[in-house]
Amino acid sequence: MDPDRLRELIDGVARGEVDTAEALERLAQLPFVDTEHARVDTHRALRQGLPEVVYGPGKTPEQIAEVVAVQRQVGLSVLVTRVEPDAARHVLRHAEGGDYDPASRLLWFGPEQVPIRGKGLVLVVSAGTSDLPVAAEAAGVARRFGNEVELLQDVGVAGLHRLLASSDTLRRARVLIVVAGMEGALPSVVGGMVAKPVIAVPTSVGYGAAFAGMAALLGMLTSCASNVCVVNIDNGFGAAHVATLVNRL
Amino acid sequence: MDPDRLRELIDGVARGEVDTAEALERLAQLPFVDTEHARVDTHRALRQGLPEVVYGPGKTPEQIAEVVAVQRQVGLSVLVTRVEPDAARHVLRHAEGGDYDPASRLLWFGPEQVPIRGKGLVLVVSAGTSDLPVAAEAAGVARRFGNEVELLQDVGVAGLHRLLASSDTLRRARVLIVVAGMEGALPSVVGGMVAKPVIAVPTSVGYGAAFAGMAALLGMLTSCASNVCVVNIDNGFGAAHVATLVNRL
Amino acid sequence: MDPDRLRELIDGVARGEVDTAEALERLAQLPFVDTEHARVDTHRALRQGLPEVVYGPGKTPEQIAEVVAVQRQVGLSVLVTRVEPDAARHVLRHAEGGDYDPASRLLWFGPEQVPIRGKGLVLVVSAGTSDLPVAAEAAGVARRFGNEVELLQDVGVAGLHRLLASSDTLRRARVLIVVAGMEGALPSVVGGMVAKPVIAVPTSVGYGAAFAGMAALLGMLTSCASNVCVVNIDNGFGAAHVATLVNRL
Amino acid sequence: MDPDRLRELIDGVARGEVDTAEALERLAQLPFVDTEHARVDTHRALRQGLPEVVYGPGKTPEQIAEVVAVQRQVGLSVLVTRVEPDAARHVLRHAEGGDYDPASRLLWFGPEQVPIRGKGLVLVVSAGTSDLPVAAEAAGVARRFGNEVELLQDVGVAGLHRLLASSDTLRRARVLIVVAGMEGALPSVVGGMVAKPVIAVPTSVGYGAAFAGMAALLGMLTSCASNVCVVNIDNGFGAAHVATLVNRL
Amino acid sequence: MDPDRLRELIDGVARGEVDTAEALERLAQLPFVDTEHARVDTHRALRQGLPEVVYGPGKTPEQIAEVVAVQRQVGLSVLVTRVEPDAARHVLRHAEGGDYDPASRLLWFGPEQVPIRGKGLVLVVSAGTSDLPVAAEAAGVARRFGNEVELLQDVGVAGLHRLLASSDTLRRARVLIVVAGMEGALPSVVGGMVAKPVIAVPTSVGYGAAFAGMAALLGMLTSCASNVCVVNIDNGFGAAHVATLVNRL
Amino acid sequence: MDPDRLRELIDGVARGEVDTAEALERLAQLPFVDTEHARVDTHRALRQGLPEVVYGPGKTPEQIAEVVAVQRQVGLSVLVTRVEPDAARHVLRHAEGGDYDPASRLLWFGPEQVPIRGKGLVLVVSAGTSDLPVAAEAAGVARRFGNEVELLQDVGVAGLHRLLASSDTLRRARVLIVVAGMEGALPSVVGGMVAKPVIAVPTSVGYGAAFAGMAALLGMLTSCASNVCVVNIDNGFGAAHVATLVNRL
Amino acid sequence: MDPDRLRELIDGVARGEVDTAEALERLAQLPFVDTEHARVDTHRALRQGLPEVVYGPGKTPEQIAEVVAVQRQVGLSVLVTRVEPDAARHVLRHAEGGDYDPASRLLWFGPEQVPIRGKGLVLVVSAGTSDLPVAAEAAGVARRFGNEVELLQDVGVAGLHRLLASSDTLRRARVLIVVAGMEGALPSVVGGMVAKPVIAVPTSVGYGAAFAGMAALLGMLTSCASNVCVVNIDNGFGAAHVATLVNRL
Amino acid sequence: MDPDRLRELIDGVARGEVDTAEALERLAQLPFVDTEHARVDTHRALRQGLPEVVYGPGKTPEQIAEVVAVQRQVGLSVLVTRVEPDAARHVLRHAEGGDYDPASRLLWFGPEQVPIRGKGLVLVVSAGTSDLPVAAEAAGVARRFGNEVELLQDVGVAGLHRLLASSDTLRRARVLIVVAGMEGALPSVVGGMVAKPVIAVPTSVGYGAAFAGMAALLGMLTSCASNVCVVNIDNGFGAAHVATLVNRL
Repeated sequence: MDPDRLRELIDGVARGEVDTAEALERLAQLPFVDTEHARVDTHRALRQGLPEVVYGPGKTPEQIAEVVAVQRQVGLSVLVTRVEPDAARHVLRHAEGGDYDPASRLLWFGPEQVPIRGKGLVLVVSAGTSDLPVAAEAAGVARRFGNEVELLQDVGVAGLHRLLASSDTLRRARVLIVVAGMEGALPSVVGGMVAKPVIAVPTSVGYGAAFAGMAALLGMLTSCASNVCVVNIDNGFGAAHVATLVNRL
Repeated sequence: MDPDRLRELIDGVARGEVDTAEALERLAQLPFVDTEHARVDTHRALRQGLPEVVYGPGKTPEQIAEVVAVQRQVGLSVLVTRVEPDAARHVLRHAEGGDYDPASRLLWFGPEQVPIRGKGLVLVVSAGTSDLPVAAEAAGVARRFGNEVELLQDVGVAGLHRLLASSDTLRRARVLIVVAGMEGALPSVVGGMVAKPVIAVPTSVGYGAAFAGMAALLGMLTSCASNVCVVNIDNGFGAAHVATLVNRL
Repeated sequence: MDPDRLRELIDGVARGEVDTAEALERLAQLPFVDTEHARVDTHRALRQGLPEVVYGPGKTPEQIAEVVAVQRQVGLSVLVTRVEPDAARHVLRHAEGGDYDPASRLLWFGPEQVPIRGKGLVLVVSAGTSDLPVAAEAAGVARRFGNEVELLQDVGVAGLHRLLASSDTLRRARVLIVVAGMEGALPSVVGGMVAKPVIAVPTSVGYGAAFAGMAALLGMLTSCASNVCVVNIDNGFGAAHVATLVNRL
Repeated sequence: MDPDRLRELIDGVARGEVDTAEALERLAQLPFVDTEHARVDTHRALRQGLPEVVYGPGKTPEQIAEVVAVQRQVGLSVLVTRVEPDAARHVLRHAEGGDYDPASRLLWFGPEQVPIRGKGLVLVVSAGTSDLPVAAEAAGVARRFGNEVELLQDVGVAGLHRLLASSDTLRRARVLIVVAGMEGALPSVVGGMVAKPVIAVPTSVGYGAAFAGMAALLGMLTSCASNVCVVNIDNGFGAAHVATLVNRL
Repeated sequence: MDPDRLRELIDGVARGEVDTAEALERLAQLPFVDTEHARVDTHRALRQGLPEVVYGPGKTPEQIAEVVAVQRQVGLSVLVTRVEPDAARHVLRHAEGGDYDPASRLLWFGPEQVPIRGKGLVLVVSAGTSDLPVAAEAAGVARRFGNEVELLQDVGVAGLHRLLASSDTLRRARVLIVVAGMEGALPSVVGGMVAKPVIAVPTSVGYGAAFAGMAALLGMLTSCASNVCVVNIDNGFGAAHVATLVNRL
Repeated sequence: MDPDRLRELIDGVARGEVDTAEALERLAQLPFVDTEHARVDTHRALRQGLPEVVYGPGKTPEQIAEVVAVQRQVGLSVLVTRVEPDAARHVLRHAEGGDYDPASRLLWFGPEQVPIRGKGLVLVVSAGTSDLPVAAEAAGVARRFGNEVELLQDVGVAGLHRLLASSDTLRRARVLIVVAGMEGALPSVVGGMVAKPVIAVPTSVGYGAAFAGMAALLGMLTSCASNVCVVNIDNGFGAAHVATLVNRL
Repeated sequence: MDPDRLRELIDGVARGEVDTAEALERLAQLPFVDTEHARVDTHRALRQGLPEVVYGPGKTPEQIAEVVAVQRQVGLSVLVTRVEPDAARHVLRHAEGGDYDPASRLLWFGPEQVPIRGKGLVLVVSAGTSDLPVAAEAAGVARRFGNEVELLQDVGVAGLHRLLASSDTLRRARVLIVVAGMEGALPSVVGGMVAKPVIAVPTSVGYGAAFAGMAALLGMLTSCASNVCVVNIDNGFGAAHVATLVNRL
Repeated sequence: MDPDRLRELIDGVARGEVDTAEALERLAQLPFVDTEHARVDTHRALRQGLPEVVYGPGKTPEQIAEVVAVQRQVGLSVLVTRVEPDAARHVLRHAEGGDYDPASRLLWFGPEQVPIRGKGLVLVVSAGTSDLPVAAEAAGVARRFGNEVELLQDVGVAGLHRLLASSDTLRRARVLIVVAGMEGALPSVVGGMVAKPVIAVPTSVGYGAAFAGMAALLGMLTSCASNVCVVNIDNGFGAAHVATLVNRL
C-alpha cells in the first residue's frame, strides 16, 4: 500500500466515508506503511492491543504532532516518551486531547482510563529521589499499557527499614520493576525478598565512578539474586514493556 | 538452630527416627542453617518449590558431594551447575543417584521426571554452535525447574531462512530465552517476531572485539526490540530462573 | 611551486590568460600546494577523478568559502561535509553556485548531475529514523562521486518483514552500505541475504549502554556474517568513498 | 529434509546410486540441513561458488573430520581455519586428501589449484613478522577462494623505504588487505598510496597499551585515509572473504 | 649503614654478642637497609609496633625464607601474605617456628597470641562463600596486628534475614571491614545499619560483567551510604591495615 | 506516621503547642517520614548527632528551601552540599539564617560554632589549586560535623619541599583526608609519612588521559602505601563523613 | 616567609627601595611562597632559567592578571597557556606589556626575543590542520623557552610525498615534537626517518572511535619506532618542556 | 640485493674472501635485506652505531640463533630482549660467544665492554622490587648501547626518605629513566627533584585496579611534573633507546 492510498484511507475516515472498524481491518493487513519520513509499523500495536509509542528525542514538536495526528485519525492511542515540558506545550498546541505528565515526561493521546488487561499488580520500586523520573516513566507506561501499577519510592538499600516496612507491598506484586542509580544494589535486595520476576533498570544518576549508569548496570547484571534481569540505562519504557507482556501471561 | 541440632535432625532422618515431613517442616521454619563452611539458605527453595542449586566452580568434588548429601537426606533435590566432566565423575563416586549431562554441564540429584509446573512452553533459541553450552544450561535448568522446554539451535541472524522456518515454534512459546555471542543480534530479531517476553543471554563466544561477551552484552542492552531484557554473560542459569518465575504466573 | 606562483596561476585562469586545461595539467604535476593555512593535496582528486572534499567541522564559514573559491577557479568540484544549516547559509552568501541538502548536511559546488562512473547500484540501507543523517551523508557522497544510488530506510531488524519485502532491492545492489545505531545488528542480517561486499557504518544513535556508537561498532566488528567490513562511527563519508572505489572496479 | 533423508542421499552418493550432479541439485534446494550437532547451511557455499568454511577452534579433531567427510561426499571443497599443527595431524589421519599449511593454520580439502575467478590481484600487505600468521591466513583463504594473491611482508611504517620500494606492487593490486598490530598505522600509509579499496586487519600483536589489538583497531577505524575499512582483530578470514567478493565484481 | 655492617650486627645478635634491645635501637635509627635484593624499610614496623609484612607473590620460597630469617634474628615478627600451600610447605622447611593458615593464605612468624592493642572489635563481614579467602586474609591480618576480630560470613544482600539476624554483632563493632564480589552491594546495606566507619573490599569473585572485580569496585565507590571507603580489589591486607590504625585511635 | 500527622506535629511546634524536646522524641521514634516528594530519614541524623545533609544538585532552590524549613522547625541543623552561588542566593531569599561559602559550595543552617565532638585534628591536604573546591567541601563538612579541621593546600608531589616543610602538621593529625587530581599520587606520599588512616579523594581535575578522575582514582586504589582508603571522585563529603566517624572513636 | 613579608619585598621593589638583583636573590632562597590563593613555587623557574608558567583554564582573568603582576614586579617573565581570546583581551586590559597569539592561545609577558639557550633546532611536526592549535602551543612554548623552532605542518601519513619532501628538514632537527590526532601514526613514520628523540603528542582531534584522543594515545604508546616517547593528550606544553630540557643538554 | 647474493656475500666473509670492511660497506648501501623469514633492516643499526636488536618473544630458539649467526658473520653485535632462561640456554648451545643476564632477560652477542658514546650518566630509578625486571632491562640495554648507567632501586614514594637520601645521585644524571608499577607516582616525584628529562616506564606490576599497568600508565601521562614523557607498559627497551639518543646529543 503506497502513501497515497494510505492518505486516501485516512481522508476517508476523516470524512466519515470509511468507518473505523474497516480502516483498522485494512491497516491490520499491512505489515507497514511508507510515510514521507519513515516506514511506520502499524502492525504490532494493532496485534498486541498496545498503543503506538513514539520516542520523543530528536523529533521536532511539529513532527511529533504529525505522527500523532495520523494515528489518532484511525483511532489509535499514542504515547510519546521523553518529552520535555516546552516541547509538550508546543505539541499540545497542534494536537488536541493530549495529556502531559511532567514527572514521567510522558505525553498521552488516548482514553483517560485504559482498560486493565494485566492480571496482577506491576510494582515499580525506586531507590532514590533522583531516580524518580525513570521510575515515573516505567510506572506511567505500564499504566497506559493497561496494568494496575503502584510506585514505591525512596527505599534505597542504605535505609533498610524503609524497604522492610514495605514487604507486604512487595509480596502483592505479580512482577516488579526496580529502578536504581549509583551502585544499583536495590534489585539484589528486592530479588531476595520476593519469588517473582524482577526487571532491573539502572539509571544514570550519580557522579564520578558511577560513569553515567555503568556502575549500576554492572551491579545489576552481576546480581547475587538470580531472579533479576536487566534493561538499558534509564530505559523505564523497556522495563514497562517487558513487565506488561509478563503480566498478561 | 545450631549446626549440632541440624546434624541431630538429619541423623534422625537417616536413622528413620524423624520422618521427612517433620524434618521438612522444621527446616522450613529456619531462615538459614549454619554449617561448617557456609550459611545455607534452605528457606527459598522450600517456599518456591524449586530444587536447591549449587554453583559448581571453586568447589572441590568433595565439597559438592557433602552439600548434596545434606540436602538429599532431608529429601530435597539438588542441581549443581557448571561441573566439568572430571569433577562430575568424582562427585558421582561419592554421591549416589546423580545424573550428569556433559552438554549443559549440569549434575542433577532428584526425580528423573520433574513435575511440570510452568504453564506453557519455555523456548531456548541459540545463535551458533559455540553458544550451545550456555543454551543447554538454560534448557536443562528450565527442565529441572519444572518447565516444558524446547531448544531451537543454530538459527543465527546471518541465515535468516533458518529462523523464519521456525516462526511457528517461536509463536508457540510462552516465554523465550535467546542465547547469542559475537554481535548478539538474535534477541532483537526474535523480539520483533513475537509479542512475548524475551530473556537475552550474551555469551563469551567470539574473539577480538567481542571482548569476552561485552559486544553481545551491549548489543542486547541496546536492542531496538523493547520486549528484551538481559542477564549476565554466559548466565544460562539466571535466564532459566527468570523464565521459570514468569512461566508460573 | 610556491604560493605566489600558485596565486599567479589562478589569477591567470581568472583573467582568462591561462586556460583550464593548462592549469589542470600544471596542478596535476604538483604533489601538493602550500597555502596560507594548510598544505593542500590537489593530486589525489585529480588522479582519481573525484571532487575535492572538505571536512566542515572546525572551519569557519569564511574559511570554507575561501577553500571553495580556490578550487572552483581551477574548475574543480568541491564537496563540503557536515555543514550545519546556519553555516551553509553563511557560506552560500560568499560562494555562488552551491547546493545545500539539510538531510545529509552536504554542501556541493559542481555540476547538478555528476556523470555516472560506478558500474552498478550502491544501495544504502538504514536501520532507524535516527540513523538517517548518516545514511543520507553516505548516499549523498556516493551520488556526488558518480554512482547510481538508492536509499532503503527504516528496515530495522526488529521488524524483519520490512527488510524481507525489500530483498529484490538488496539483490540488485553491486555494493551495500548498511547504517545502524543501537545494537548495530542490521549489517549481519543484510550480509546473510546477499553475496556482495557490505560496508557497515555504526552510528552514535542510542543512549546508555550504546555508549555513543560503541555498542554498534563492536557488534559490526564481530558480525557473524563474514562479508562485512566496518568504518568509523557516523562515518558515512568513508563508507561512500570505499563503496565508490569498489563500484569502479 | 530430515537428517535421515540426508544420510540416505549421501549414502546413495557413496554407493554410486546417486550421481553428484543430482545430489548437488537436491542439496541446493535445501536452505539448510539439520545434522546431529548443528543446522548446517549448504546453500550459501553452493550459490556463491565458494568452498564450505569451518571455524576450527572449539571443535575436536573428530568433529572436524566428520564435517569434512559429509561435505567431501557430495563433492564440496572444505577449508578449515585456525587449526593447530597437532589437531591438523589428527584430522588428517581420519580424513584423506587434505593439505595443511602451518604458517596460515589452514587445512584444505579440495583441488590443488582452485580456478581463478577474481578479476585482479589481491595484495596482502603485512607490517611485521609477528603479524605473519594473520596475513598468511588472509592470503591462504583468498587463494582457496579463487584469487591471484601476492603477499608483501615486513613493510612496517617505521621503515618507509621498504614500503616505497614496493610501490609498483601496490599499484598492481585490484584490492588490498593490510595487516598490522601495535599502532596499526600501515593501512593509513598504504591507503594514501593507492586509489583502491583497502581492507585493514588489526592483529593482537603487541603488549601493554596495545591491549590485545585494541590500539590497532582504533587506529584503523580513525584512519586519515578514507579508503580504508576494517574487520575484527586477527580476522584474516573475514578480510579475504570481503576481498574475494570485491575482486569478483 | 651498609650491608656489611648490617650483616655484622645481625651476626653479633646470632652469636649473642649484641643483645636484642641494642640491635633494635640501632636498627630503629636506620631509615632503611640495603640488602642484596632490596632496600628494606625496617623503620615503619618498629615505630608502629606492627610486624614486618612481606607480599608473597613473585617471590620464591627461598627468597621468602631468607627475608624471614633476617627479621627473626633481630626479634621482629614477620607476616607473609598470599602464600599458596605448596610454597608455604617449602618455606616452613627452611624457616622454623612458622604458622600457616590455608584459608587466609597467611604465613606467620611470631608469638601465637599477639597482644591486643586495638580498642574495640574489628568485624569482618563477608557476602558469599567465594569471598571467604579475602575475608579470611583481612581477619587474619587484623588479628596479627593486635585486634580483637570477628568474622561474620555468608550474609549476602539477597538473603537479608541472615544479615538482620546479626544486627547486634554489627552494632558491637568499632570498625567494620565488608568484603563482597559480584555487585558489591553489601557495604551499602551494612553502612546503613551502623554509624561506624566501613572499609569496603571488592573481590574478583564473579564472571562476565563482574569484570574481575570492576563491578563490585564501582558499586562500592558509588555507595549510597556515605560512611563507606574502599580499598583495591581483593586487598584484604590493606583493609586490615586501615582498620588497625583506626582501631588504635 | 502519615504526612498529615507529621504536618500537625510540626504545626504544633510552630504554634508553640508542642515543645521541641517532645517533637524530637516523637520524631526519633519514627524510622522515616513520608513527605510529598520523598521518604525522608530523620532517624540517622538524630541518633548520630549529625546535621541533616541535603545533596543540592538536581533540586530547585524552592525544593531546597522547603526541606530546610521542615528540618529547621523541629530544631535540626541542615547542611546543603554543591550549591552554586546563584542557587544559594535564591534559597537564602526563602530561608532565613543560612550561611553560604562559595569556595566549598556549602550552604549551612545551624549554629555558627558547632560544638567539637571529634577527639583530634582532621587534616585536609590538597595537591593543587584546582583541587581546592573538593578540599574545601571536605574541610567545610568536617567542621560542620564537629571536628577541629586544618587545610594544607598546594603541596603537590612535584614540589616535595612544600610537603616536607609541613611534616609537623601532618604528624599532628588524627585522621587525614588527601585530595588530588591528575595522577593522584599525593595520598601515597602522605601515607608513607604518617602512621594514621588516610582517606583519599580523587578529583576530576586534569584533561586527556586523566579521564575525569579515572587516573587519580586508579592511582589511589593501587597505592603502595597500605594505610590509604578511597572514596568516589570529587566526593569531599563522603571523605568528611568517614573522617568524622573515625575521629569520634 | 609569610605573605606580608613577600608583599613588603615586592612593594620595596615597586618603590625602588629594593633592587631587582637583591629581590631575586631573596626569592631564590625561598622554596615557595604562600600567597592568598596558592602556594607558588618560585624556585624552579629561577634555577632553570625558565619563565614562570601559568595554566590558564579554571582561572578568572582577574586571577591571571594578579599572578602576572606579582611575577612581573620581581622581573620574571610569565607565560600563560590555553587562554581563550576573550579572556586574553580581559587580562591585557589589567596587565600591561603582554603579547597574545590566538593560534597557540599563549599569552606572554616578557622580552620579545628570548635569548636562545637550546643547542639545536626543535622541530614541531603536525599531521593535520585540526592538530594545529596543539602544535602551535608546542612551538610557541619552545620558542619562549629559548629554542630555535620550526613548524612543519599538514604532513599526515596518508600523503607521504609531503613528508618525504621535508626529509631534509627532519634531519636538521636535534629533537622532534610530533603532533597527531585520529590514528596518531605520524610519530611512527617520523621516528623511522630520524635517529633523534621523538616526543609524540596525541590530540583529541577526531570523532567516534578516536575517543577524544585515546586512539592516538594508544597508537603512539605502541609505536613500532622505539625512539618515540609520549605525553598526555593535547599536552603541547609538556612536549615543549621535555624538548627544551633535551635541547639544553 | 636478493637473498642469494646476500648469502654469497656472507659466505665470502665466512671463507675469508671478503673482508669485513668491504662487507659492511656493501651492506650499508642496502636499505634492507630479504631473508627467508623476514625483510631485515640492516641500515639503521649501521648508521646509528647501535647493535641490532631482536625482540625475543614469539621466536623459537632456533630462529633466534639463526638471526644471530647472520649478524655475527658480518661483524655486527646483537642484543636479544625478553629471553627466558630456558630459551637462553637453548640459543647459547647453537650460537657461541653469548652472554645472558637472567635479571634483565637480555642475551648479548658482542664485546664485553661496549665503548661509551653517551655524554653523561643514564640513571635508572625503580620503585619496588617487582619492578626490577623492567628496570634491569632498561639499564642493561642502555649499557649495551654505550652509556654509563646506574641503577637506583626500591625508592618508592611511600618511603620518601630513601629517595631523598639519593638526591645527589639524581642530580648527577644527564637523563633519567623512572620505572614504577601500581600507582606509578615515582616519575612525578623524581621529575620535581631534577631539571632533566625524565622517561617514565609504567610496569604491569600490581593487581586489581592496577589493570595490568593501566593505572601506572594513566598516572604517568597525567603527571603534575611536566618534564616527564612516557613509553609503553613494561617497555624498558624503548626507554633505553630514547635515553641513548638523548644522551648522545
